[in-house]
Amino acid sequence: MSRIKYYWEDLAPGSVRELGAVTVSAEEIKDFAEQFDPQPFHLDEAAGRRSIFGNLCASGWHTCALAMKLTVENFLTESSSMGSPGLENLRWLKPVYPGDTLHLRHTILESRPLRTRTDTGLVRSSWEMSNQNGEKVLQMEGYGMFGRRNPATAAEIAQLEATLPKG
Amino acid sequence: MSRIKYYWEDLAPGSVRELGAVTVSAEEIKDFAEQFDPQPFHLDEAAGRRSIFGNLCASGWHTCALAMKLTVENFLTESSSMGSPGLENLRWLKPVYPGDTLHLRHTILESRPLRTRTDTGLVRSSWEMSNQNGEKVLQMEGYGMFGRRNPATAAEIAQLEATLPKG
Repeated sequence: MSRIKYYWEDLAPGSVRELGAVTVSAEEIKDFAEQFDPQPFHLDEAAGRRSIFGNLCASGWHTCALAMKLTVENFLTESSSMGSPGLENLRWLKPVYPGDTLHLRHTILESRPLRTRTDTGLVRSSWEMSNQNGEKVLQMEGYGMFGRRNPATAAEIAQLEATLPKG
Repeated sequence: MSRIKYYWEDLAPGSVRELGAVTVSAEEIKDFAEQFDPQPFHLDEAAGRRSIFGNLCASGWHTCALAMKLTVENFLTESSSMGSPGLENLRWLKPVYPGDTLHLRHTILESRPLRTRTDTGLVRSSWEMSNQNGEKVLQMEGYGMFGRRNPATAAEIAQLEATLPKG
């Protein structure tokens, strides 16, 4: 009955997922910027050429949103995803220009049960987005909460408690 | 002639800026989600009610984009901003629901010259976004590059070099 393919137990540290690609147009870059990041180099080709980026380029938040789109469409919709509490070490490494095709890869770095919710586990993943020239444009480490196939056992919780700081 | 009010030198550690407020509608939440984060709890009221969020709620990336909108409109347009290399410690602390009014505050945490560009400085700022009930919904520490009013002196660069690891 369920369309869920990946539960928390299925997300093994070290596993790598290629999550497809998306191409971004000048019109999409300007549309996003007009709504959320109206800086000249995200709105106008001439202003982009005068900036340190050398051309019109996408808002960093637009790049993140495109990474999320690939993550949802090619992974989370088949998973027991329950949202994210946050992320670490986000870097916008290269500008994203009109016509760039961006490829996303996730690598699972860490996985642990949640102490407060026995039906849920937490995963930390590296997100890496690269353009058609193989240049990395975005990286981050994102946290995700996923429903478990089987609830945490008392032994698992006890082991987790033992690893946490007291008090 | 210049419309620039804030250069790197004007962004003192400890200074606080209230950067206005934005209200988000159900329609805007769904529009963003359809484009970038089509998870059921961001698209549909009934699915939201069945989720751990208890109602339709905004994509975390939408919340970030709204924080950026306030940052650009109420601060960066008057500054010598040259973009951002990234951020740290992003946390989505509470869901954002339709009709919520989100207030943004920046606090400058740290400021330093750039070794590689004498015309530019780097600033690290805390971003805190709260809803109309005073609940914090988003926090992060963002890096920003800003043009300097005066280029770095040789003494300033030498002092910076002395604080960096060798090799």
